[in-house]
Amino acid sequence: MVLALAEAEAAATRGEVPVGAVLVDSAGNLAAASGNRVELDHDPTAHAEMLVLRAGAARLGTARLAECDLWVTLEPCAMCAAAVALARLRRLYFAAWDAKGGAVDHGPRIFDQPTTHHRPEVYGGIDERRAVALLRAFFRDKR
Amino acid sequence: MVLALAEAEAAATRGEVPVGAVLVDSAGNLAAASGNRVELDHDPTAHAEMLVLRAGAARLGTARLAECDLWVTLEPCAMCAAAVALARLRRLYFAAWDAKGGAVDHGPRIFDQPTTHHRPEVYGGIDERRAVALLRAFFRDKR
Repeated sequence: MVLALAEAEAAATRGEVPVGAVLVDSAGNLAAASGNRVELDHDPTAHAEMLVLRAGAARLGTARLAECDLWVTLEPCAMCAAAVALARLRRLYFAAWDAKGGAVDHGPRIFDQPTTHHRPEVYGGIDERRAVALLRAFFRDKR
Repeated sequence: MVLALAEAEAAATRGEVPVGAVLVDSAGNLAAASGNRVELDHDPTAHAEMLVLRAGAARLGTARLAECDLWVTLEPCAMCAAAVALARLRRLYFAAWDAKGGAVDHGPRIFDQPTTHHRPEVYGGIDERRAVALLRAFFRDKR
């Protein structure tokens, strides 16, 4: 999560919402790391989670990442949670909960849907305070 | 929808689930067209809708596609529906309903969630029979 938080910090310096993500393969090796790049790339889908899923899948040469784990600094939104299910990830670790945009423990609760393709193990609240502090500082400066 | 169906047919010939999508800009011009590329690109997020959102946003130089409309041959899944909301699309037209994986009129019903970022106008069932025939032929041949 330390690396994901560093990616979130780097995203904030680019003017992006400070969210960072890291994909780890079955051997515990780093498969991909990224922060949000929505504004930089002019890409509405360029959330940190999507970028590491895409980069990790390309690197590992498969669209199914069943042995991989995702670490992300914020509860994933519906797009990212559904992508995690499509990729068949093993575990999802996230830091801060997101009552407004989160879709794991809030809103559409993607993994609780009977139609979900897959349910990863989910662990929320890891290093929550650091992630919340980053997000709060970012949105305070924006106002 | 004719062009989206052609993209779906092309996807089937590549061994991909036959879904095609087209993004049209505010002037009615084609901004992007693609079929599914999940297997070809080793990318779990490479649904046709995601690919045209990304390509269209890159082409138009903005992550917000508020004046654009998406045409797709299958009811979007949760990932794609949430991406449509994030991109602030004006209208979503789709062909076949998808009771199993759809997330517009089924499952998490993304645009009906109180936490959705945006609700496009939605029109389902356009050219439904052709899209269903393509999907049925594909899955029949797979068995």
